[in-house]
Amino acid sequence: MKKWNAIVGQSGGPTAVINQSLAGVIEAAAGCGKIERLLGARHGVRGILNETFVDLFSIPKEKVEALANTPGAALGSVRKKPTEEECKAIIEIMKRLEVRYFFYIGGNDSAETADLISRSARDSNYDVLCFHVPKTIDNDLRETDHCPGYGSAARFVVQAFMGDECDNRALPGIKVNVVMGRHAGFLTAAAALARRYEDDGPHLIYVPERPVTRELIRDQVAEVYGRLGRCVIAVSEGVIDANSGRPFLEIIKGQIATLSQQVEDGKAGISKEEFECIRLIAGIEIDSHGNFLLSGSGTLGDWLAGYIKQSFGKGVRVRADTLGYLQRSFVGVVSSTDATEARECGRKAVEFATRTETNGTVSIRRVTNEPYVVEYVMNELKKVARDTRTMPDNFISASGHDVTEDFVAYCRPLVGPLPDIARL
Amino acid sequence: MKKWNAIVGQSGGPTAVINQSLAGVIEAAAGCGKIERLLGARHGVRGILNETFVDLFSIPKEKVEALANTPGAALGSVRKKPTEEECKAIIEIMKRLEVRYFFYIGGNDSAETADLISRSARDSNYDVLCFHVPKTIDNDLRETDHCPGYGSAARFVVQAFMGDECDNRALPGIKVNVVMGRHAGFLTAAAALARRYEDDGPHLIYVPERPVTRELIRDQVAEVYGRLGRCVIAVSEGVIDANSGRPFLEIIKGQIATLSQQVEDGKAGISKEEFECIRLIAGIEIDSHGNFLLSGSGTLGDWLAGYIKQSFGKGVRVRADTLGYLQRSFVGVVSSTDATEARECGRKAVEFATRTETNGTVSIRRVTNEPYVVEYVMNELKKVARDTRTMPDNFISASGHDVTEDFVAYCRPLVGPLPDIARL
Repeated sequence: MKKWNAIVGQSGGPTAVINQSLAGVIEAAAGCGKIERLLGARHGVRGILNETFVDLFSIPKEKVEALANTPGAALGSVRKKPTEEECKAIIEIMKRLEVRYFFYIGGNDSAETADLISRSARDSNYDVLCFHVPKTIDNDLRETDHCPGYGSAARFVVQAFMGDECDNRALPGIKVNVVMGRHAGFLTAAAALARRYEDDGPHLIYVPERPVTRELIRDQVAEVYGRLGRCVIAVSEGVIDANSGRPFLEIIKGQIATLSQQVEDGKAGISKEEFECIRLIAGIEIDSHGNFLLSGSGTLGDWLAGYIKQSFGKGVRVRADTLGYLQRSFVGVVSSTDATEARECGRKAVEFATRTETNGTVSIRRVTNEPYVVEYVMNELKKVARDTRTMPDNFISASGHDVTEDFVAYCRPLVGPLPDIARL
Repeated sequence: MKKWNAIVGQSGGPTAVINQSLAGVIEAAAGCGKIERLLGARHGVRGILNETFVDLFSIPKEKVEALANTPGAALGSVRKKPTEEECKAIIEIMKRLEVRYFFYIGGNDSAETADLISRSARDSNYDVLCFHVPKTIDNDLRETDHCPGYGSAARFVVQAFMGDECDNRALPGIKVNVVMGRHAGFLTAAAALARRYEDDGPHLIYVPERPVTRELIRDQVAEVYGRLGRCVIAVSEGVIDANSGRPFLEIIKGQIATLSQQVEDGKAGISKEEFECIRLIAGIEIDSHGNFLLSGSGTLGDWLAGYIKQSFGKGVRVRADTLGYLQRSFVGVVSSTDATEARECGRKAVEFATRTETNGTVSIRRVTNEPYVVEYVMNELKKVARDTRTMPDNFISASGHDVTEDFVAYCRPLVGPLPDIARL
């Protein structure tokens, strides 16, 4: 039987375990007996177009293992949707290189790219089997119980909130922590797993699935602060203003852009209302010695902290942190479940592709939660391409600013056993 | 021999190992034979004034051990310099409770508080021995080779930069990471330990000890970007503008405050120059679909990223993260050297105080670097109170935007063995 060549690429935002999936593809491809050479495309589809490849079968096993335990996309990643012309060019290159299998590790955009290439191949009457390997810290892919990459990012968020709870208890105040997630609140919701005691933070959790007003946030913070003398808040970066239906961050930036335009146009003045937003973002605060406090964080966190500070007045300590890119790249915080599953998704993609000789994606199905058992199933590419999912209703509490026990039960095995901490 | 009571408190910003020092005090106090009861003051001197104490000898050993491994100040912390009246009140309370030893775990401000209380005791002719136990992530205490708390915070910074380097290599661009440190660059400098290969980030390191201009930063970034197609930058939050001699963050906030005042005063307009600063902070960026990008981070990071973005033009990916409070509180990232030394500093404070019957502080002296061996010595309180230290010249490269091999050799044993990562 003729052996064919295969290409594997990584795409979209890296995760802590995206290289586990790459290692899974390498292992399974080497062992399946159907693949002659496995070419690693540098920076996804751009690497195919530029023909910058790495011969992955030539890499020693120990090196593959070390790469698997390294965050970031080892092959290099890309954010690129290939045009029709580029898809045709990719197919020509694959023909010339005798490539029959294409594995693309990424999120919904990457699934779409794999789908586009598979369509282009069909139009060209060239047989390339395109398989998507799921990856995203947002956990927003459809059809799968959860996504490789989510568990480790969630673990980072949980460990951050566990520590921040200790810090906030030591020096009480109001703390706003902004977590990644533009449309789906899964990662922000994971902060709930940081709780050990009844009064542990995060005390309030705001996700994009439940629009809210800043006045409501203020009132809910006031309730917690009145009760505990402190309050830790988890906010998704994509949290939505219930009045306008638009993300707060978009509104804030929009206000600044409007103001910027007025200045650019040489208009005479700006109103106090228009200016307020900027002042809140900047979080101006002067200490008792007349010095400017060097606090500061991301726009949403600063804006929200500024608004809360203004509402509560002096004497209340309000701080904000934006967890940022550390959530997806931090070295040394990995969920072992996540690592295992990411590896297995890579392996299964090769197994499914070479066995069934069709296009597809790998989905994870949770068989039982206690004990936690999953199985890997094949799904149609188009089912996960483009559209994403958000948190189901049963994961969000009726109040709208917390998660349910269902969510905690769902998330806990993905994050894995947590470090032990204690309080007096 | 009559046994006396003792008070222990924690003060200032918590660290990942400040409870190790508390555990050290508890252990040594229980074993020294001179202390009847050890009272833990809730939230430092405020807990003494309010007489909110915990009987620390009643806590089971396993619990003490669990607390030792928990970040944040278990007793609660405080940022408070007691007034003369309060010092007198504290002495009265100590007299009444038959307290002869006072242990205060904290930074230079806490050493000053211990010193103030010791003076007040002397004026009252009441014998209280005040001992300071060093703690600070900034590593800016005088007289000691390094401070408990620094090693673990530095470890967090290193692991963050190791991961961010992988992320930046996968999706190349310019990345600004703002690290804690208003006056001393030790924590920012630690980012250098993240490097494995010649071209690994951080490529540029800016510390408060070396004033710089934003134009110089831009030019140095351009040089790295031209060479590698990417650039990772570590910046201390307290980095100073060489033109004015003031921290950039103070200048930025000052500009916004001025602008704010003009608007408050109902003045007609603001100039483009005055407005530029705000626009940079806000980091307005519109993607190819006309949507506002929801990026954002702390003020300095956003401002610097905005300035760099403006200089480089479209097509160059510029991002900023502010590591924030995670640096001092993250659960699960602790340097074992740091943990051991923090514990030992607590023990030694009790040993020195009860043996010498004088006031003082514990300092760490590095006997040899390879193998790494330290000893603990007693120092005068006033030597570490108030004033702090910054990085010595031999730790900063001649270029001013990097560290030396001397610094790396100094810092490495404090951070401990790092996780293994690899690259293709």
